[in-house]
Amino acid sequence: MNPAIEAVGGSTIRALHARRTPTSINLGLGEPTLLPNMAHFERATAWVAENGCRYSTNIGHDDLREAIARHYDYPGLNDPGNVCIMTGSQEAVYIAMKTLLDPARDEALLVEPAFPVYAKVAQIEGIALKRVAMGPETGYAIDPDAILAAIGPSTRMIIICSPCNPTGRVISKAATKRIADALSARPGPPIYVMHDEIYRELMYVEDAGEFGKVYPYTLAINSLSKSNALTGLRLGWLFAPLDVMPQIVKMHGWATSCASTFGQRVAYEIFAGNDLATQAAWYRPQREGALAAVREAGLEAIEPDGAFYVCLRVGGEDTLEFAESLIDERDVVAVPAHIFGASLKGWLRTSFVGPLDDIRVGYRRIAEHAKSRNLSVSRK
Amino acid sequence: MNPAIEAVGGSTIRALHARRTPTSINLGLGEPTLLPNMAHFERATAWVAENGCRYSTNIGHDDLREAIARHYDYPGLNDPGNVCIMTGSQEAVYIAMKTLLDPARDEALLVEPAFPVYAKVAQIEGIALKRVAMGPETGYAIDPDAILAAIGPSTRMIIICSPCNPTGRVISKAATKRIADALSARPGPPIYVMHDEIYRELMYVEDAGEFGKVYPYTLAINSLSKSNALTGLRLGWLFAPLDVMPQIVKMHGWATSCASTFGQRVAYEIFAGNDLATQAAWYRPQREGALAAVREAGLEAIEPDGAFYVCLRVGGEDTLEFAESLIDERDVVAVPAHIFGASLKGWLRTSFVGPLDDIRVGYRRIAEHAKSRNLSVSRK
Repeated sequence: MNPAIEAVGGSTIRALHARRTPTSINLGLGEPTLLPNMAHFERATAWVAENGCRYSTNIGHDDLREAIARHYDYPGLNDPGNVCIMTGSQEAVYIAMKTLLDPARDEALLVEPAFPVYAKVAQIEGIALKRVAMGPETGYAIDPDAILAAIGPSTRMIIICSPCNPTGRVISKAATKRIADALSARPGPPIYVMHDEIYRELMYVEDAGEFGKVYPYTLAINSLSKSNALTGLRLGWLFAPLDVMPQIVKMHGWATSCASTFGQRVAYEIFAGNDLATQAAWYRPQREGALAAVREAGLEAIEPDGAFYVCLRVGGEDTLEFAESLIDERDVVAVPAHIFGASLKGWLRTSFVGPLDDIRVGYRRIAEHAKSRNLSVSRK
Repeated sequence: MNPAIEAVGGSTIRALHARRTPTSINLGLGEPTLLPNMAHFERATAWVAENGCRYSTNIGHDDLREAIARHYDYPGLNDPGNVCIMTGSQEAVYIAMKTLLDPARDEALLVEPAFPVYAKVAQIEGIALKRVAMGPETGYAIDPDAILAAIGPSTRMIIICSPCNPTGRVISKAATKRIADALSARPGPPIYVMHDEIYRELMYVEDAGEFGKVYPYTLAINSLSKSNALTGLRLGWLFAPLDVMPQIVKMHGWATSCASTFGQRVAYEIFAGNDLATQAAWYRPQREGALAAVREAGLEAIEPDGAFYVCLRVGGEDTLEFAESLIDERDVVAVPAHIFGASLKGWLRTSFVGPLDDIRVGYRRIAEHAKSRNLSVSRK
């Protein structure tokens, strides 16, 4: 047995979900409840009937990579050769970190709060990880100066998820530029910025920075999971500089060979039909409804700039125990937010992908649960 | 950059294919040319229209794992908990080797000739690999005594592909039992047998051993790629003992999250409709036709017991150069078989998945190419 794998934890979120009952109000979901647009599946099926469902090249189908490169048009990353199609953004994260970092000497800098996968991959691969926490004093805003100050001599990758899961914070254009300019001005080998853009299409502010637009050493990661309600399609992609792409594609090839040909065809139809942002309109009233429910329940929340989560402050020392007893005693599933970073101790992550009535009832029960434990949760 | 990934080679087979022309006779393919049964795609699409395309559990859908466990009915491995659904057999190989072997002390024993992926994964993960070569003296038969004699104190996994890619050799029931009995009688921690069964449905002999039937420490790997002409679906599975499954599922989860929900639904339809062996009938006359073409061309071949390859002896010292010049000078793509193991130096792997006319012309050109280089290729 590989001791690095034995030592790493599993998914707390998935373990919590295993605790829920058939009647549970589920605010723990990290995926859309919308149905996907079936026209893309039907066209992809027709394509397979004619062409078969054969291996693609390791890097992925040319037409899809062209469509993706053109759609984002990131300067210096806008060639189809800059795009590798992956088995979801999860494989993209895994392959990028495993390939580009030397466990013997490189360090990754993780901007927290952050989805647990980055730290788990670092642990499995023996990559040193330094955490830089965005905190309550700035409303969890992504602070470029704190990030730049945390860079050390071994830092070779900075990992930023924006819009952020779970805070919903979006890095500003100015902050993005500030980081890009500082990194570009540094002597020595480049520091990659892995920008996980998985919630890019679900954005409620205008001022959103994209590293791909301003920094050529960007590793931009995305997928169809959140934008198109296709978490189960396992179709994502990784933008990377041309000089490192052969190594990335090689590792991807030995790990999974290539992404699904059917999934790639669905993705091609989505890009060809410009159907990436269609479902986004549904999330705006959901967000408004969730924030109204926050006020009704008298809770303190981080108002999200993007993604589909609202973090709620419930206080207390043991947020995992709070979340577990919330399921057991009040039949509400929410995710303890400290698993995304210590600066969220005392917070819960809730998602607003379900019915607003459920969200209202769920938030009320969360407030009651906190009050029953004498925890102060109301707005300051 | 990770030096272990920089050091490992890419796919020679894929590199050779990049050399081909639009008119090339392609005997290099490792995938069926048949079309898949589209009824499964249509049913899976209807299912998604109703249920969405959401994440599955990391281990995979219950109904599919139940169907797979029941179908194979391997004693001690016949619980749905013994089955993890993977992104093709490639991910199954990667995750099984990475999870179950400790690079600091364990050794894998590879039965050669063998598809390159096992050795590449060992190299990337820093796992010591010992090779035990099946050779021409026994017609490349899988020899249990040679395998057992190669076991050392650090051996923790034996890797066997049967039917074998590229030789088409199938391990006999007696040889399988001989290995299983010897391993079961050993004191100390178990030695896993990773039995890659990817060509299991394409078999031309009756006497075929299955480790899952006789040895509880079997890691049985399969997928829909070869049996159902679905290489591009990326849907495979791994059987493993219950006690190690949590670690396997965890590593799979952090690498790729879960297999495609759509792919899992296609697989469920295939198992529910008992459609795994339907295409196998097509391969038998293809094999006969290819062997007739071997005789016509006056070549020496390994007559396959399974899979869809015929290895041809072309002689000479540099089989890669032979294969490259065969493409450039005679427009025929075939794979130098020494990349599967040194005991196949001087052999080419050809596949019989294409039109028989192409196979006949291709074999004639291979014989001519060898003769033009004064290489002796005829049957002894």
